[in-house]
Amino acid sequence: MTDTLTQTSALDSARDAFRAEILDTKWLVAAGEPGLYARSGRFEDAVEGVARFVQTRFADLDAARLRFAPVFPRAEFEQTDYIVSFPHLTGAINGFQGTEAEHKQLVNARANGEQWDSWLSPAETMLVPAVCHPLYERLRGTLPEGGQVFDLEGFCFRHEPSRDPMRLQAFRQHELVFVGADEDARTFRNDMAARQLEGLLELGLDAKTVAANDPFFGRTGRFLARNQLADEAKLEIVVPIYGDLDEGTAIASANRHGDHFGATFGIETAEGDAAHSACLGWGLERVVLALVRTHGTDLKTWPTEVLDLLALDR
Amino acid sequence: MTDTLTQTSALDSARDAFRAEILDTKWLVAAGEPGLYARSGRFEDAVEGVARFVQTRFADLDAARLRFAPVFPRAEFEQTDYIVSFPHLTGAINGFQGTEAEHKQLVNARANGEQWDSWLSPAETMLVPAVCHPLYERLRGTLPEGGQVFDLEGFCFRHEPSRDPMRLQAFRQHELVFVGADEDARTFRNDMAARQLEGLLELGLDAKTVAANDPFFGRTGRFLARNQLADEAKLEIVVPIYGDLDEGTAIASANRHGDHFGATFGIETAEGDAAHSACLGWGLERVVLALVRTHGTDLKTWPTEVLDLLALDR
Repeated sequence: MTDTLTQTSALDSARDAFRAEILDTKWLVAAGEPGLYARSGRFEDAVEGVARFVQTRFADLDAARLRFAPVFPRAEFEQTDYIVSFPHLTGAINGFQGTEAEHKQLVNARANGEQWDSWLSPAETMLVPAVCHPLYERLRGTLPEGGQVFDLEGFCFRHEPSRDPMRLQAFRQHELVFVGADEDARTFRNDMAARQLEGLLELGLDAKTVAANDPFFGRTGRFLARNQLADEAKLEIVVPIYGDLDEGTAIASANRHGDHFGATFGIETAEGDAAHSACLGWGLERVVLALVRTHGTDLKTWPTEVLDLLALDR
Repeated sequence: MTDTLTQTSALDSARDAFRAEILDTKWLVAAGEPGLYARSGRFEDAVEGVARFVQTRFADLDAARLRFAPVFPRAEFEQTDYIVSFPHLTGAINGFQGTEAEHKQLVNARANGEQWDSWLSPAETMLVPAVCHPLYERLRGTLPEGGQVFDLEGFCFRHEPSRDPMRLQAFRQHELVFVGADEDARTFRNDMAARQLEGLLELGLDAKTVAANDPFFGRTGRFLARNQLADEAKLEIVVPIYGDLDEGTAIASANRHGDHFGATFGIETAEGDAAHSACLGWGLERVVLALVRTHGTDLKTWPTEVLDLLALDR
C-alpha cells in the first residue's frame, strides 16, 4: 500500500511540476478550470507544424479534407450509444428556449443566488467527443469502389478535469479515416499505424506502440475494455512524460472499428456490405507537449531536424 | 402587408438558393442541423488566408496571440451577465456525474425511448459566445503602461438555427482586443475600424461601416439596443449578400465596451482606473462566404490581387 501511495503522490508531483514549467515558460496560459488552457502563439505554431507534418507524410493517400465544428447533431450522437459507453466524458448542450416571462423568472432566481439551469432545455447539438463522429452520417449510402479516406481536424470535448497538463477537457484531434471493405480497413490500420510511429520517432520522441482500450464506464465497461484489448482493435502510441512513474501517455492511436459505424449509419461498400472503418488519430496538443517535454521548453534547444520537419523557427 | 410578405419570401428564396449553390460547389457540406456545416479543404484554406491577411495588416500592433478552446469556465460566464442579455444564444454544458446505478437508470430510460437529460448535471464550463470572453479573467490585476493588445481566434457558439448560410451555430471569430485607458480604447476603436474597412475593400468586397446593435433579448433588450445604437458603441461592416432584399450582412465589427469588462473582471490601468476595452472582430466564415458571393464559387474567377492577398492558388 505504502509503495502505491508514494508512487501516486510522486506522479502527482511530477505532473504539477510539468504543469508549472509549461505555464512559467508561457507555452500555455491557465484558463480557470483543470484541463482548460489558452494556447500561446508559439504553442499554436507548433500545433500547426505537427498538423502540416502529418498531412505531408500522408499526402499520397489523397484524403478529402473536412473540418467540423466543435458541436454536432444530437440525433447523430444518439446513434453511436456514446452515452452508454462513455457517460462520464459526455458534453450535452442546453439552451434557453422559453418566453420573456420565463426569462424573468430565470433572472430573478439567479439574482437570489439560485441555480438557473432548470429554465434551460436540451439543444439540437452535443459536443464532439472524437473528430470522426460527425463524419459518418455524411456517408450514408454507397461508397465508391475501393473505399474513401478523409483527413479531419477539430476540437473534441471530454469531461475529465485533471491536474495533468497532458489531459485537456477541450483539445484538437487530427484524424485520417478509412471507410470501405473489411480487409482494406484492416490493411489501412496496420500499414498506417507503422507509418504513424515512424513519423513520431523522426520527431525525436521516445515513442512505442502498445495495445490499448478506451476508458469505458463501469463494470460492463471493464468487460468491453478487455475485449477491445484482446482483439487489438485499438493501438496507442505512448511516450514517457513522467519517467517510470507511469506507463507513458498516449499521443496518437490507430483503431479498427469493425462495421460499428458502417452498420449504425447505413454506409455500404460498392459490393453492398456494411462498410468497415479504421482511423489514425493524433492528439495535437499532446504531441506538442511531448515534444516540449522531450526537447525542452526553449525552442533553441530543439534539434534542427525536428524544427525543419515542423517548419518552425528558433 | 403583402409587400412585406413577398419581400420575406423572396429573401428566404435567395438564402436557399445561395445555400444550395455553396453546397453544390462543395465549399461547405451540410452537417445535419440548420447552421451546422463541415468545411471543405478549399473553404478552410480561404479561412486561413483571411486570418493571415488580418494578422499581416495589423502586425504593427505587435499583439499577443492567444487561442482559447470552444468552452470556458461557467464562473467567468456568470460574471458577464450574458444569460440576462442573450439567453436565447447561450450554450450551457451538462455532463453525467452520477453513480453506476444512476447510469443504469439513464440507459433503461433511453432504451424505453424516454428523455435522459435529467440524469445530467451542469458541468464547470459553458460554450464561448464571443472569442474575447475567456480573455478578461486572465487580465485581472494591473495592466502595463499604455495598455495591451491581444490577437485572438477561436470557435464561438450561438444557438440561432437558421436557413441562411451566413448564420452559423458554430463559427470562428478573429479578434484584436485593446485593454487600457478610456481615451486609448476610443482611439483604438476608431482608427482600427477605418483600417478594418480598408482591408475588406481591398479584398474586393462592397463593404461599408454602419452603426449597429447586439441582438439583446426581449423588451428590456430593445431599450439596451437603442442606447448602444445612439452611443455608436458598435460599428458593423456590412456587405450585400442578397441584393436589395435586406440591409446586408455583417462580416466584421468594431466595438467599444466602456469599462464593462474592466470593472467586472477587476482589470486596472497603470494609473489605477478601471480598464476600458475595445475590439475588432472578423467573422471568418462570413468573410469567406462574402468573398464567394462576390467573386464567384470558382476560384478561377477571383481577381488575381485578391488571391495574392489571401495567398490562395487558383
